[in-house]
Amino acid sequence: MKRVGVLGGGQLARMLALAGLPLDLRLRAWDPAADPPAAPVAEHVQGDWGDPAALERFLRGLDVATLELEGVPVATAEAVAARVPLCPSPRALAATRDRLEEKRLALAHGIATAPFAAVDDEAKLVAALHEVGLPAVLKRRTEGYDGRGQAVVRDAASALRAWRDLGGAPSVLEGFVAFEREVSIVAVRALDGRVAFYPVVENLHRDGILRRTIAPAPGVSAEIETAARDLAARLLEALGYVGVAAFELFEVGGRLLLNEIAPRVHNSGHWTIEGASTSQFENHLRAVTGLPLGSTEPLGFSAMCNLIGDVPDPAALLAIPGAHLHLYGKEPRAGRKIGHVTVRATDRDGLLDVLGRVERVIGGTA
Amino acid sequence: MKRVGVLGGGQLARMLALAGLPLDLRLRAWDPAADPPAAPVAEHVQGDWGDPAALERFLRGLDVATLELEGVPVATAEAVAARVPLCPSPRALAATRDRLEEKRLALAHGIATAPFAAVDDEAKLVAALHEVGLPAVLKRRTEGYDGRGQAVVRDAASALRAWRDLGGAPSVLEGFVAFEREVSIVAVRALDGRVAFYPVVENLHRDGILRRTIAPAPGVSAEIETAARDLAARLLEALGYVGVAAFELFEVGGRLLLNEIAPRVHNSGHWTIEGASTSQFENHLRAVTGLPLGSTEPLGFSAMCNLIGDVPDPAALLAIPGAHLHLYGKEPRAGRKIGHVTVRATDRDGLLDVLGRVERVIGGTA
Repeated sequence: MKRVGVLGGGQLARMLALAGLPLDLRLRAWDPAADPPAAPVAEHVQGDWGDPAALERFLRGLDVATLELEGVPVATAEAVAARVPLCPSPRALAATRDRLEEKRLALAHGIATAPFAAVDDEAKLVAALHEVGLPAVLKRRTEGYDGRGQAVVRDAASALRAWRDLGGAPSVLEGFVAFEREVSIVAVRALDGRVAFYPVVENLHRDGILRRTIAPAPGVSAEIETAARDLAARLLEALGYVGVAAFELFEVGGRLLLNEIAPRVHNSGHWTIEGASTSQFENHLRAVTGLPLGSTEPLGFSAMCNLIGDVPDPAALLAIPGAHLHLYGKEPRAGRKIGHVTVRATDRDGLLDVLGRVERVIGGTA
Repeated sequence: MKRVGVLGGGQLARMLALAGLPLDLRLRAWDPAADPPAAPVAEHVQGDWGDPAALERFLRGLDVATLELEGVPVATAEAVAARVPLCPSPRALAATRDRLEEKRLALAHGIATAPFAAVDDEAKLVAALHEVGLPAVLKRRTEGYDGRGQAVVRDAASALRAWRDLGGAPSVLEGFVAFEREVSIVAVRALDGRVAFYPVVENLHRDGILRRTIAPAPGVSAEIETAARDLAARLLEALGYVGVAAFELFEVGGRLLLNEIAPRVHNSGHWTIEGASTSQFENHLRAVTGLPLGSTEPLGFSAMCNLIGDVPDPAALLAIPGAHLHLYGKEPRAGRKIGHVTVRATDRDGLLDVLGRVERVIGGTA
């Protein structure tokens, strides 16, 4: 039995813990919240990120640590990494939790992104508007997720408003990309440097929140698949990364632009629980504990729909053959991810049929 | 969120709890042991089966109860069932935990078994030997599992020895059946009476312990598949059964003989975690909580090997593509089931290939 610590106790930690137990890996989740989603299946250490007593409780007898949210303070990650191996490392975390660092990293490795400029003050904002053009999106460099911490900018006045709404935090102005679609690739790098890839998937967002993933993405060319794997492999290698990471991408005119790197298991990989030979959660744990990676082969065709805000009738969902329900044990609240449903089929037509039935129950995604 | 109580906290309760959490079902396991396998993933109520305080702790706020071992004292099951729905019911439990009742039930429903006779004392033993013939197997009516509580009888002297070794407990003498193979069918009956079946699987035992299951069983005729479903459906209906049950069968000359009914999720159904659209664990919980049953369709071809006695090198097992490891968190001990490995493939040849690799790591099954 090994003890794996996770910074954060949300649904990602919950699903990591569920994947870990069959491998005799017991998870311990550090989370400031009182009853986080991982609590029923992991040992919960409650405490603020700066609490030294919580740090000690978290570290006691731990074999390795990982994280489920990149918003963990750098000081906490470093305090953990000083005492036990932390995967991904504080260096990889620093490079991916900051949108500006992330884009600079991409540039340094010849990986295309949307046009961008750093914004640290109002003068820089004006310069950035000229450099990047309009429309654009102003995003906080750190701590944004699920559409929070960002705003669309259509002119100089709305840019200033957005800057003030974001509290004047260090930000990045990104040129608006008229992408054909959003895709992502989830990859996992083992301790020995081997890398495995799940197939490129297609993601549909609304209000900045992922609604639906289709896996594999329909109509992906061999060139796009190869390009996605190639950029993921280069970035993982550059970061000396260990574990699962997700690369959110825009597909534009047969090219890929890197949007964002998530240094953790990712919502666009939830379909792998039923839809791949080995789930992203199990593969992340295999990687960080030094076990061989499992096959990432997809089992037919899958789709994942997030449950956002409130829980539809579980019986109605479970009456749909091939629908798999994952609830996170969270209180319903507008805009909150409280679960997801995965459907799997042996062909695309069957998938779209069952997906349609699921979306009618949960209220659609469009 | 619903709370589901489980009598017993072994590996079956552990796998039930892992299957329940995504449906927002929280399990509570009553087990006299200090740190049973289910403890990391379920609320553990420790106490002897007759302990009234443990009963109260177990029942508090419970929506429904079920069990993972049929050896629970009848009085405990009845005390639980008096306060909360228990699935299966004490009646179904009483009929299946006693080998003699089980065989009488089969006879009453026109289902063939091996020849048998009740043995309550030495005089009855002598009569039974004449009635059933030799060789035969003397089995305790209750509390036998994994080959314990039974002995092969070759002559009158060994019969008397067996009777004394079993402590003179009420027993059944069963005629030895020269079966071609052992198969089983796992079925699940919903609250509304609907029944779903996993395919008939082939089981290989050694020293009375299940070593390997192949799913679906190779070369099963449509008649055998139908006969298995038919006997399972009739028995579940007769018992007013709710939940998963397994029917262990002998295949002899194109016929099936009922060997044993397990009123719970079953070792020969463990392959369903990866190998079927919905696992036996999830379907059991769906049934007892009144949710619709999930598809029992197999995903290609699967095999399950038990890990008995000690843990092989997990890295060696996990390096085999398509091998899935399930450890139960139990201390290694000779003859003890401490985990299992499931392999899945898209065709039979692929399955046998990967199964061979697994069996070389775990030391074979023959």
